[in-house]
Amino acid sequence: MASAANKKFLAISGGVGGAKLVLGLSRCLATGQLSIVANTGDDFRHHGLHISPDLDTVMYTLAALNDTERGWGLASESWNFLAALETLGGETWFRLGDRDLATHIQRSQLLAEGHTLSQVTRRLCQQLGVQYPLWPMSDDEVSTVVHTGEGALPFQHYFVRRQCEPAVTGFEFAGIDAARPQPDFMAQLASSDLSGVIICPSNPFVSVDPILGLPGVRQALRECKAPVIAVSPIVAGMAIKGPAAKMMAELGVPVTALAVAQHYQGVIDCFVVDESDAKLAASIEQLGMTVAVSSTIMKTLAEREALASAIIELAESAR
Amino acid sequence: MASAANKKFLAISGGVGGAKLVLGLSRCLATGQLSIVANTGDDFRHHGLHISPDLDTVMYTLAALNDTERGWGLASESWNFLAALETLGGETWFRLGDRDLATHIQRSQLLAEGHTLSQVTRRLCQQLGVQYPLWPMSDDEVSTVVHTGEGALPFQHYFVRRQCEPAVTGFEFAGIDAARPQPDFMAQLASSDLSGVIICPSNPFVSVDPILGLPGVRQALRECKAPVIAVSPIVAGMAIKGPAAKMMAELGVPVTALAVAQHYQGVIDCFVVDESDAKLAASIEQLGMTVAVSSTIMKTLAEREALASAIIELAESAR
Repeated sequence: MASAANKKFLAISGGVGGAKLVLGLSRCLATGQLSIVANTGDDFRHHGLHISPDLDTVMYTLAALNDTERGWGLASESWNFLAALETLGGETWFRLGDRDLATHIQRSQLLAEGHTLSQVTRRLCQQLGVQYPLWPMSDDEVSTVVHTGEGALPFQHYFVRRQCEPAVTGFEFAGIDAARPQPDFMAQLASSDLSGVIICPSNPFVSVDPILGLPGVRQALRECKAPVIAVSPIVAGMAIKGPAAKMMAELGVPVTALAVAQHYQGVIDCFVVDESDAKLAASIEQLGMTVAVSSTIMKTLAEREALASAIIELAESAR
Repeated sequence: MASAANKKFLAISGGVGGAKLVLGLSRCLATGQLSIVANTGDDFRHHGLHISPDLDTVMYTLAALNDTERGWGLASESWNFLAALETLGGETWFRLGDRDLATHIQRSQLLAEGHTLSQVTRRLCQQLGVQYPLWPMSDDEVSTVVHTGEGALPFQHYFVRRQCEPAVTGFEFAGIDAARPQPDFMAQLASSDLSGVIICPSNPFVSVDPILGLPGVRQALRECKAPVIAVSPIVAGMAIKGPAAKMMAELGVPVTALAVAQHYQGVIDCFVVDESDAKLAASIEQLGMTVAVSSTIMKTLAEREALASAIIELAESAR
């Protein structure tokens, strides 16, 4: 990766799926070469605490503190708080671990003291030894609302409490029109030394769209000198993780990498599909973007590094 | 204890010391025969949470969930939240256990929803199976401030953070003049079927005085038909627990049960001193109260029951 020494990349990420690629990128790029902006549309207040699930997932992953078996939260977590809360008749549908709770308490405390979410995130990352800048998409509140056959649900109620069961009819990002994109994120997009923007294989509707929908972000991506590369979260007609495929089916969109490419049309320059979707390349290229075929399923750390490395080379060749 | 069947008692308690006698009383009196009012002057907000140390100590003790070795908090507690908070650079001087945290989170949540502290306490007690009514001294905020040679300190900063190290010069109960005593507490004091009021062996300055200092409470105690009995927290010139003796010395008050009796003069009818202080009886009686001599050190449950039983008999004989 010596050739990457003077490259700067920006990763756009949601939670678990995105964090896997972010981790791969962090293994290929030095401090100063990688910045990450994460979705905060699924942030919410619970028990009076400000919870930022995607920021935490990326932070814990980069700090090597994440639980890889469960797939979310901290490794070696304990659940005594939650057990006691259940005894007290409290709400326990959102699984807050004892150690994880410290993050939410500390974040809420610092926010209450007047720090921005960016400042709080920087401080938490510093304490956990995360070397790469991690930015919330905005310091302003944006709340993803999932419209379903049962009515509108706040994102975490849809995602965790209802386990994505209600059929989706659309999405809304409350507060997005008045929200300002995080300034460092926007400065990075406008920077002349940016080598590539990588849209991680996160959910296009509820992880990436809140970021792209912030005022000025789509235009900044279009005007960005560096190639904008998205990795398909849909592989062989299935979502690697999470409700993306279910959502597409419910919205009447074909559950294909091609449909994801269409979703990002006009914003991205290059679309990375899995080898199993190589046959879609010609159709996707007709959307006005290049296609790269790679192994995009990241079960092992080696696979995360390999995909990250392939994307970095892709950005180099696309310049 | 058959003779106690038609008796009703009200216990006035602080934290650990008071809770021991409350537990003893609960072993001698049936549901409906005992109510407890606890100090909330040492309540405080920490990490955005409303913490009520004395209410919790009494509640945990009556629920048999308290840690008897450590002397505070919950038994079988874990400390993973606090360890994680320390990693994040948060404030850890107030030792919040993982299970205990659920109480503060649930209380804060219910208060934020508009419930009174009395309602919240009732709900928490119900969930933990506490059968006896436990009332906060007030639903309004009263904050004990400790004046010291180093300036004014919020109570928990003095008590926990500074481990009672600064020399005390006086006390202040911010908000007390505007605070209303808990209505059920006042109704109980005015009730004709009350058999006795028991001021537990809690710290007179920071546990009992905030309760006595609420508007109308001293007068209600003076007008109360039932005997008001206080148990000395000072035995043989030492405090059983906590900083009472240190405070008395710093305030220039003799560290004796007699001085505590003087402190309660005009409010109580009977003062219970330990056998080791029997020689003070004559001096204390000159203050216009009767004196009972008993074994007041409650190391075992049997000793708590014995003291409680003695006080109940005392109230009976004083009628």
